[in-house]
Amino acid sequence: MVEAAKQLIRQRGYEATAFSDVLKLSEAPRGSVYFHFPGGKTQLAKAAAEAHAHDQVVIIDQAAAQASSAVDLVESYLDLAREGMVASDYARGCGIAPLVIDGAARESADLGETSRRSFAQMIDRLAFHFVVLDIDQTAARVLADAVIAGVEGALVTARALHSPTPFDAIRAALVSLAASGSPKGSRHKNG
Amino acid sequence: MVEAAKQLIRQRGYEATAFSDVLKLSEAPRGSVYFHFPGGKTQLAKAAAEAHAHDQVVIIDQAAAQASSAVDLVESYLDLAREGMVASDYARGCGIAPLVIDGAARESADLGETSRRSFAQMIDRLAFHFVVLDIDQTAARVLADAVIAGVEGALVTARALHSPTPFDAIRAALVSLAASGSPKGSRHKNG
Repeated sequence: MVEAAKQLIRQRGYEATAFSDVLKLSEAPRGSVYFHFPGGKTQLAKAAAEAHAHDQVVIIDQAAAQASSAVDLVESYLDLAREGMVASDYARGCGIAPLVIDGAARESADLGETSRRSFAQMIDRLAFHFVVLDIDQTAARVLADAVIAGVEGALVTARALHSPTPFDAIRAALVSLAASGSPKGSRHKNG
Repeated sequence: MVEAAKQLIRQRGYEATAFSDVLKLSEAPRGSVYFHFPGGKTQLAKAAAEAHAHDQVVIIDQAAAQASSAVDLVESYLDLAREGMVASDYARGCGIAPLVIDGAARESADLGETSRRSFAQMIDRLAFHFVVLDIDQTAARVLADAVIAGVEGALVTARALHSPTPFDAIRAALVSLAASGSPKGSRHKNG
């Protein structure tokens, strides 16, 4: 159910994803769904966003395990996002962004908190790895914030343009920032 | 009407924006609306996305007129986007992205072409100014692609986080890329 909801939300957003479509795609019996998701579509979308954030944290951890530098981690995370977009033929975006774009995160305090926490988890995990990879704490947070924003944006414009070039472009910007990241204990540059 | 549609789409996305809400907000007489927009909501969303892209091109031109370098232009465009987000109290995103996120750009060939062309216009205009500001043609396209993706992403994560830090972070990444941009006629760096 959650997987089906996540897929549909990534393809057509929050509003256009009907509870009945999720039921159909997941082939779950209607009774069990109302038993497990008494909160209906809101609860399902919350679980889907949390699942999406969890997937991303796992991907980040796997990429970090192979990375020997912050630049390495930025490059492989961006490449994975790019591959996913191309593999879906530009059909699949983020599982959290639709809650924000469709205003659901503002209408429902629960979905608002879910979308905030989901992005925060991804940013925190990236920042943690950047520190391990020898980036200064403050710079690590800025870099992590930029990576998640950059990927989110490329997920939108690459879909619209039907081209992977936004991933390549934002990757170049993020690598440039990662390469300039102050190592731990050094002084920051201005700005 | 178009202004009302743009406002609502930026706040609650494409799907959740009902034709009747646009009528209500714009206070336009129903008859004249069907006369001017026989294509209904699709046509209205198309006009709203085009208006949004036009607004952005005007903002880009104004920022470019004051800029003495590519870094300058990147900084002021990002600052304007950040100010708009804070001024709306994190309620207002992009006027084009919802067509992509809500799957409308895939369902309707017309909206698909509109979202592609709208983003392309913004990217082309930025790239044009970067070349004027002495960035090599290829690097100018990459930088412009990165700026639009970066702003789109910050419009999503800043709204979710209720914080302007994504704009500051992505600005640092884009400035870093702009500062490294090969001047016209020089050789490119790898990657």
